[in-house]
Amino acid sequence: MQPYKVDPEKPFKLKKLDANHVGDWEGKKKEGKQEFHELQQELADLQQKLYAEHKHQLLIVLQAMDSGGKDGTIRAIFEEVNPQGVKVASFKVPTALELDHDYLWRVHQKTPGKGEIVIFNRSHYEDVLVVRVHELVPKKVWEKRYDQINAFEKILAEEGTTILKFYLHISKDEQKERFMERLTDPKKQWKFSESDIDERQYWDAYQAAFQDVLEKTSTPWAPWYAIPANHNWYRNLCISTIIVDTLRSFKMKYPDPIPDPDKYIRALQNESSKDGEN
Amino acid sequence: MQPYKVDPEKPFKLKKLDANHVGDWEGKKKEGKQEFHELQQELADLQQKLYAEHKHQLLIVLQAMDSGGKDGTIRAIFEEVNPQGVKVASFKVPTALELDHDYLWRVHQKTPGKGEIVIFNRSHYEDVLVVRVHELVPKKVWEKRYDQINAFEKILAEEGTTILKFYLHISKDEQKERFMERLTDPKKQWKFSESDIDERQYWDAYQAAFQDVLEKTSTPWAPWYAIPANHNWYRNLCISTIIVDTLRSFKMKYPDPIPDPDKYIRALQNESSKDGEN
Repeated sequence: MQPYKVDPEKPFKLKKLDANHVGDWEGKKKEGKQEFHELQQELADLQQKLYAEHKHQLLIVLQAMDSGGKDGTIRAIFEEVNPQGVKVASFKVPTALELDHDYLWRVHQKTPGKGEIVIFNRSHYEDVLVVRVHELVPKKVWEKRYDQINAFEKILAEEGTTILKFYLHISKDEQKERFMERLTDPKKQWKFSESDIDERQYWDAYQAAFQDVLEKTSTPWAPWYAIPANHNWYRNLCISTIIVDTLRSFKMKYPDPIPDPDKYIRALQNESSKDGEN
Repeated sequence: MQPYKVDPEKPFKLKKLDANHVGDWEGKKKEGKQEFHELQQELADLQQKLYAEHKHQLLIVLQAMDSGGKDGTIRAIFEEVNPQGVKVASFKVPTALELDHDYLWRVHQKTPGKGEIVIFNRSHYEDVLVVRVHELVPKKVWEKRYDQINAFEKILAEEGTTILKFYLHISKDEQKERFMERLTDPKKQWKFSESDIDERQYWDAYQAAFQDVLEKTSTPWAPWYAIPANHNWYRNLCISTIIVDTLRSFKMKYPDPIPDPDKYIRALQNESSKDGEN
């Protein structure tokens, strides 16, 4: 999956990324799904270890165009994981209270603690995406944010958080199809809003904003992965592979057994039988 | 599952509850597990509807003796549910900041919003359990809390939150077995701590504290269910039945289709083909 990593040292061209790409898995959708299923299981096991070891913290950032598949990714990849160990933080339109603070304030509060995995469904990157596209703040404000974000994420990383960022790349045609599906399926119409059509007019401006995000904020301590996402099964396979590889690299182990379990075993065994009756 | 509901109008005797009880499912463990599996699936569907409808909010409180099965319950029952729609709030030993506030302050922050399910793994009830057993505050302070809790939960309920509270009842012998299992399995030893043995000495005091909790704080707006929990499969079956019944009673439906989908469908269809190429 390394080809999808945005190299911090090289120029990056989003336009060259094919949203339909399925790499070496061309014609192997069934095998790809099987592989993904195995990764789901392994992820569930690794998360248990992460929780038990209480040493690492993993932050996963998801960004995409509307209908790009953020919700579906979360649902699919973490299906087998204990909900107690994974938190999802969704960042919507900021509240008045949030707007009274700097844009990283609400984000910092949701970063993972030791033993935790946190998934950001949207994130501080909205402050250089929607905020830039709709000029919600002046350019001289948002253009400073790339450096600020890199500095902020560096602090998190230095203090122990591993950061993985995924941009789910769909094509404009694919978005049209997904909107059409929502509009024609009565069970899905509630997911559609008029603003989806409005926002679609800004497609090119968003792509330019993503281009800058990916080129300016993929760092050694918080890399971006630009994932072809027209095919859900391939998107799931890519993302779960990267997450599982990362968790494997932690070389986690369950905490050491306690020094003298026999002491406690004896204590339990020596309880008078009367005590044990209840 | 109504027999396990603690009737607010009647005296309740925890001592009469058999932790081994399996009701009508005696000798039918396999069928019970199958039934549970179907409830898991239905719960996942109902949660999707809850989220889409954005109308109801569900708070689930779990309390039990150590090793009573709170973690296992969460893992099993919510295995199939989208992690985005379910939050788990674990209340551990309060921090200095939390202790500077009233005992309901940290709890209130974690209550569910519209469309959400929140599970409390421990809760404000610790403030009349461990706090009472170890006399962390004087009796005149904790004895007021039953009424305070009832009043607090009534506010939540009146403002739209449905509350279900589960006490997972295991026997003292069962706890011994579970501790023994943790002590003898090197992969589970990290779950054991010396304080588990210390706390076990207070078994009777905890049971008396639970007796009061169940009798004094089971209300029409926030009932307690005292669930026999020596058998994990039966515990899961009982709790999932009650949660699913509650969600069914909401008679939820997906939001109405939007009034004029054709308008948007035409807008998408009329995009120039050039626009769609990208």
